[in-house]
Amino acid sequence: MASLKKTVYEIIEEAEEGNRASEIFDIFLITLISLNVVALITGTVEELFQISPRAFHLFELISVAVFSAEYLLRVWSCTEDPKYAHPIRGRLRYLVSPLALIDLLAILPVYLVFFVNLHGLDLRFLRVVRLLARIVRLSRYFSSLQTLGRVVQTRRGELLAVISVLFLLLVITSSMMFFAEHEAQPEVFASIPKAMWWSIITLTTVGYGDVFPVTAAGRLLAGVIAIVGIGLFALPAGILGSGFMEEVSEEQSSPAICPHCGERIHD
Amino acid sequence: MASLKKTVYEIIEEAEEGNRASEIFDIFLITLISLNVVALITGTVEELFQISPRAFHLFELISVAVFSAEYLLRVWSCTEDPKYAHPIRGRLRYLVSPLALIDLLAILPVYLVFFVNLHGLDLRFLRVVRLLARIVRLSRYFSSLQTLGRVVQTRRGELLAVISVLFLLLVITSSMMFFAEHEAQPEVFASIPKAMWWSIITLTTVGYGDVFPVTAAGRLLAGVIAIVGIGLFALPAGILGSGFMEEVSEEQSSPAICPHCGERIHD
Amino acid sequence: MASLKKTVYEIIEEAEEGNRASEIFDIFLITLISLNVVALITGTVEELFQISPRAFHLFELISVAVFSAEYLLRVWSCTEDPKYAHPIRGRLRYLVSPLALIDLLAILPVYLVFFVNLHGLDLRFLRVVRLLARIVRLSRYFSSLQTLGRVVQTRRGELLAVISVLFLLLVITSSMMFFAEHEAQPEVFASIPKAMWWSIITLTTVGYGDVFPVTAAGRLLAGVIAIVGIGLFALPAGILGSGFMEEVSEEQSSPAICPHCGERIHD
Amino acid sequence: MASLKKTVYEIIEEAEEGNRASEIFDIFLITLISLNVVALITGTVEELFQISPRAFHLFELISVAVFSAEYLLRVWSCTEDPKYAHPIRGRLRYLVSPLALIDLLAILPVYLVFFVNLHGLDLRFLRVVRLLARIVRLSRYFSSLQTLGRVVQTRRGELLAVISVLFLLLVITSSMMFFAEHEAQPEVFASIPKAMWWSIITLTTVGYGDVFPVTAAGRLLAGVIAIVGIGLFALPAGILGSGFMEEVSEEQSSPAICPHCGERIHD
Repeated sequence: MASLKKTVYEIIEEAEEGNRASEIFDIFLITLISLNVVALITGTVEELFQISPRAFHLFELISVAVFSAEYLLRVWSCTEDPKYAHPIRGRLRYLVSPLALIDLLAILPVYLVFFVNLHGLDLRFLRVVRLLARIVRLSRYFSSLQTLGRVVQTRRGELLAVISVLFLLLVITSSMMFFAEHEAQPEVFASIPKAMWWSIITLTTVGYGDVFPVTAAGRLLAGVIAIVGIGLFALPAGILGSGFMEEVSEEQSSPAICPHCGERIHD
Repeated sequence: MASLKKTVYEIIEEAEEGNRASEIFDIFLITLISLNVVALITGTVEELFQISPRAFHLFELISVAVFSAEYLLRVWSCTEDPKYAHPIRGRLRYLVSPLALIDLLAILPVYLVFFVNLHGLDLRFLRVVRLLARIVRLSRYFSSLQTLGRVVQTRRGELLAVISVLFLLLVITSSMMFFAEHEAQPEVFASIPKAMWWSIITLTTVGYGDVFPVTAAGRLLAGVIAIVGIGLFALPAGILGSGFMEEVSEEQSSPAICPHCGERIHD
Repeated sequence: MASLKKTVYEIIEEAEEGNRASEIFDIFLITLISLNVVALITGTVEELFQISPRAFHLFELISVAVFSAEYLLRVWSCTEDPKYAHPIRGRLRYLVSPLALIDLLAILPVYLVFFVNLHGLDLRFLRVVRLLARIVRLSRYFSSLQTLGRVVQTRRGELLAVISVLFLLLVITSSMMFFAEHEAQPEVFASIPKAMWWSIITLTTVGYGDVFPVTAAGRLLAGVIAIVGIGLFALPAGILGSGFMEEVSEEQSSPAICPHCGERIHD
Repeated sequence: MASLKKTVYEIIEEAEEGNRASEIFDIFLITLISLNVVALITGTVEELFQISPRAFHLFELISVAVFSAEYLLRVWSCTEDPKYAHPIRGRLRYLVSPLALIDLLAILPVYLVFFVNLHGLDLRFLRVVRLLARIVRLSRYFSSLQTLGRVVQTRRGELLAVISVLFLLLVITSSMMFFAEHEAQPEVFASIPKAMWWSIITLTTVGYGDVFPVTAAGRLLAGVIAIVGIGLFALPAGILGSGFMEEVSEEQSSPAICPHCGERIHD
């Protein structure tokens, strides 16, 4: 019995190299989640959904059945992990771990919709929760996301410093533009938080064109803000960019060796 | 007496490490100013303000009372600073220092509104002055702003060079677009300064869509200007970005030591 | 006979230095394709086309005649290349090589239009195929495109990592914005794929202004997405940019030599 | 006489250090040209011009008188320069030098307007020529423009390579979007050159919103083009940026000296 649980645990958890069963299970699960995400996305397109609502529902039911079985197997076999070794307390601790909660969020909305009387609950909200939970599940298999996580971790000093500057800049520019444009456009620049929408959309250079200054003073101010502020709003992109490229090139490169003395050079 | 003044001075001025009273005072003040900034911003949202105008006014009064007391204490104790040691001339010089002026601007508008007959004065202007002065007060505690200040100082040569080029580019492109589009759009391209609004919004790539060329000549010109000019308008962002990252990494890094000979490597 | 074929082959294939005939042939062909591309582009401007439809058709006929002759000569002489040495199997393998297929696509649409009964076929589609095929033919002579190709090849690790992150980001932000804005704008945010159009246009900072959030929740979400996401969407540009500059400077630089010891410095 | 001519030449031509008269002349001329540029720009604002058209005309006349005198003095004294030593042939060669032609363009339009019967000539065109010529004159004194010129010179290899890629990209994307959107928007995507306006405004991320795809195919295509193309269109900015910073830091830095052996390190 313990041997079966161990086998299940090894298949379900991340594949070791050489474990064929675990690799096949991973590929099967990635394919199923991907198809699921595609189905949830295309299911919001009315024309596609109306071709065969039954097919969408059926695929959803099969997916949820597989995910539920997988969830139960994970809970059953998690005691193989030394961290969750105790049959009851270990399993409870596993149930509240982030990974298990995400797994639960990926299936729970379906049970709520199918089996529970949901008068007040927003179905669309549940669909989005389900979709996001499945995308997060999928992202476990994207190593580049882990790379990005490490970049954010390494550069958190710079990022925090920049974000605090951006926050001050947002508040200052919004207050000034509110003062300059409120009278001419009392609807669009109705308050400082509304002026912040202008600030964000201008300083990120998106510029939808739904909000822009019309007075001479407002345009002068906006011109100066644009030239100065855009430089600052480009900082996070630069920090992430240089960090990402450093991280990726580090992962790919073999350790640097000095060509003259043959010693390893730490970069 | 001098001992009390010295104690007050040490608490009010920047916290030395280990001075608990000063640290607590700093945290209290940062919290109060932050809440104040939030109140001033949300107070411009009519729906939020109407929930309880009394609460906004009360919080404002309490804040101003605290800021006023703090201001008076600063003026009283500033003679502890060797720079402002003289009881009268020292205090006068302190009163006109930038920090003290900002502190005054953060409270004066309230006294003007509450106690002085203000027929002609713009209340909204006073509110923005108050808000900006408090944000500037708050920004004293943001070390990243000081980092940014040092970056601007270090790179002022590059920045000035770039800004003069951008200024020339603005004038030249506005003149050319005014010539190309004035006839087709006499309202939007009414004058060269109005055409500058187009230039800034295009060259910063914001592109609201309120002003754009419609003639074939204007579009050809605008296309060339966009491709050439955007590269130049991205320069300040690049200069600030590389300077910022250099500065932050310098602050965070311990001095580099060559692992082989133990000598310090100046970068 | 073999000697004639060899001469033709050497003239038609890429010019060796010193082979005057081959160089002249290359310049002639580049000029003809360039003029052809210009004619196909200007031919879509009704006012220019109406000046003389006959001239456009005549130039097209002459070009196709030349390209057809060139194509036949290439097929005839390709057996000089050791890869396609066999008179039949070699020529067949040459006919399905990418270069030969592009050459065929650049002339075939004209024959289809002139000689075949084309009831159901879209003439505009054929024109675009012809134009694109000729641009691709032209791009063979752009060494900078080959540089770019090498950059993409060298950096494919980073690029793939970034693109997978962008893809996840697109799906997540679209799903969240669909949820936030669907009720307020059921037309514009009709489905998640439609919300993706918003995501792409916002995260690339293009910001046409045809789609933007109008609810407070949607704007808050969009503001956060813009600040975070733009940094990530700028990554491919940074990777391509640094790779391109590295590649070009490598091509242009002679190997670096230390001025003191005369040894080559590997960078 | 020759001594007077030499004195005039030294004053008028670029200031040597220590030559007070030349420095004062330079400052006077820079101030006059700057005021002139300001007057020409503000003169296009009807409200400002109408305050006192006489003042604008008077200032223009005085400026032209000074510029004319300066022009004549330059032509008279240019023989002091060994390059233009011959009294007649030297002066003629000076007259057709770029600097002298710009000087002439800065005054000639005024004479044309005041003294010549100008039935068919566009007055606005002359004003822009005059303005641009004076800005170019002014830019002689901007050393940062010369820095930029050197950057373009140094990086012309990269820039040309990138520009040729961008050109191909523009043609290809315009052709494809023309094909995808012509039917749905026959006005906006009327021809490939018109579709190029879309390509430029999208790929530079300006995004006015006057032209954007509306069909599903067009949006899919535009999304892919945006993500791929923006990276390429950001290349010139990156090349100029890194070149500019390199150039400026080179100009400002004293030569690098190795701290260990005291030898100069060429970077």
